[in-house]
Amino acid sequence: MEIRHYLNEQRQVVDLALEKYMLKPQGPFARHIESMRYSLFVGGKRLRPILCLAAADTIDPGCTAREKLLPVACALECIHTYSLIHDDLPAMDNDDLRRGKPTNHRLYGEAGAILAGDGLLTWAFDLLTGQDSVLPPESLLQITHLIARAAGSLGMVGGQALDIAYENKEFPFELLQTIHRSKTGALLTCAVQAGAVGAGATPEETEAMVHYGDRIGLAFQIVDDLLDVTASTEQLGKTAGGDAKKGKATYPAYFGVDKSRKMALEAVTAAKDALAGFQEKAAPLLAIADYIYARSN
Amino acid sequence: MEIRHYLNEQRQVVDLALEKYMLKPQGPFARHIESMRYSLFVGGKRLRPILCLAAADTIDPGCTAREKLLPVACALECIHTYSLIHDDLPAMDNDDLRRGKPTNHRLYGEAGAILAGDGLLTWAFDLLTGQDSVLPPESLLQITHLIARAAGSLGMVGGQALDIAYENKEFPFELLQTIHRSKTGALLTCAVQAGAVGAGATPEETEAMVHYGDRIGLAFQIVDDLLDVTASTEQLGKTAGGDAKKGKATYPAYFGVDKSRKMALEAVTAAKDALAGFQEKAAPLLAIADYIYARSN
Repeated sequence: MEIRHYLNEQRQVVDLALEKYMLKPQGPFARHIESMRYSLFVGGKRLRPILCLAAADTIDPGCTAREKLLPVACALECIHTYSLIHDDLPAMDNDDLRRGKPTNHRLYGEAGAILAGDGLLTWAFDLLTGQDSVLPPESLLQITHLIARAAGSLGMVGGQALDIAYENKEFPFELLQTIHRSKTGALLTCAVQAGAVGAGATPEETEAMVHYGDRIGLAFQIVDDLLDVTASTEQLGKTAGGDAKKGKATYPAYFGVDKSRKMALEAVTAAKDALAGFQEKAAPLLAIADYIYARSN
Repeated sequence: MEIRHYLNEQRQVVDLALEKYMLKPQGPFARHIESMRYSLFVGGKRLRPILCLAAADTIDPGCTAREKLLPVACALECIHTYSLIHDDLPAMDNDDLRRGKPTNHRLYGEAGAILAGDGLLTWAFDLLTGQDSVLPPESLLQITHLIARAAGSLGMVGGQALDIAYENKEFPFELLQTIHRSKTGALLTCAVQAGAVGAGATPEETEAMVHYGDRIGLAFQIVDDLLDVTASTEQLGKTAGGDAKKGKATYPAYFGVDKSRKMALEAVTAAKDALAGFQEKAAPLLAIADYIYARSN
């Protein structure tokens, strides 16, 4: 499987769906909608939507489920984008650059960026529960609940609150794991899980997917920490070395670069092992796991 | 009907439900959850949840529907509270006082307050779609969608974006109506509508409820504008005269105090007329409409 080709192709699928399902910049709220669209369409790997669709394809190799999951995939990207906008705010990480472009608040002001984030988060739930969502009501409710739980105070928002609270403070490795798992891991895992549930996975299949999501979530975060140390600002599209500057705890800070890389590889291996039961049907998810690790080299 | 007694009693019902359904300040995210709970429990009339329950009682005078609507009522209050936290931020209205107490960011910092708002918004959708919600899946999806639409970029968030964008600018009265209707009216209307839908209202009954909601939303906003001019900071629990100071367009600024008061009364009368078909079953909603106007005197 040519992973770069696959990811490119899937990114285009997601981009088309986002264009279809996202609010258009018209009417009295045009400028506000424009501010949301700026961050949503400024770029991005679309990793969460692609994971969702790839998980659906694994459960339903006929690829009929993925069509019904496109609004779910787009909702995940809206939530991811909102989290980046709020994380970049002056009161939070105070970043000027994201994906090689000015951050939302640099263009639309702080108030505009806060509201762009609020709007994208709320739009995700509008999309999940609206007429474009054609999954059965029970599945939709379950998926919407999974997403709310992963994105909220016991997941991504809670993780970001901890991340901010512990800047420039020493804390035990267990807390770093909690931060990573909630801030980054929860939504990645949820993306895979939502795809599986929407495609009609059995509880055992869903459990395997959750385990896969948990491990690639860990790998993703370790690699992210590594890239912040080893890559340039140009390569990253955001300011390199930001973690150290902000006094954030990271895997390389705890374990050094080599050990961290080894831990990322172990996590990826565990992720792939979790999918053994799906055999070749899981090819895209397996390749995505490898790709996440490959970014670190 | 003794409206103050009714509102007190219902406020206690809502407060108990909020305590039951809200996250507890424990575990690794305790401090963040505490920040959400601070604003949620610092006080408040609980008008939106009470409107939701009163609408349900009107449709179902046996009051069996209202039990099932408690999570919906609480979700509405979580969304209202999040909007106040974000509106008060330094980047927005920069208010230090709300309900006679320090605003969220004064206690938890800007980052903490942004995340408290994000957490409450997301928790609303968690609650709406989780196991505590016992309405049929189709109704729950419909209600969740109504709430997302009212709270989002075409409703409350969009209205706040316009409100901020037009500070200190002259603009036509039509735009003031759009701002009021989206920023305040949409969620009030949605509260009534969600209660009606959850209680199994017919389309005609729901339409009457929406019309009622739209008119009390208008009355509420006019009265709010009036109180900002006529009441003291102590009476308001927030800084009086804030609208003029921030260069916000208001009804009294357009029409003067007397004409504005007359417009509020007209709106309340229209709201009550919309409920004529329900006869005495609508007594609480009728009394709430009168109460909204009475606040202005």
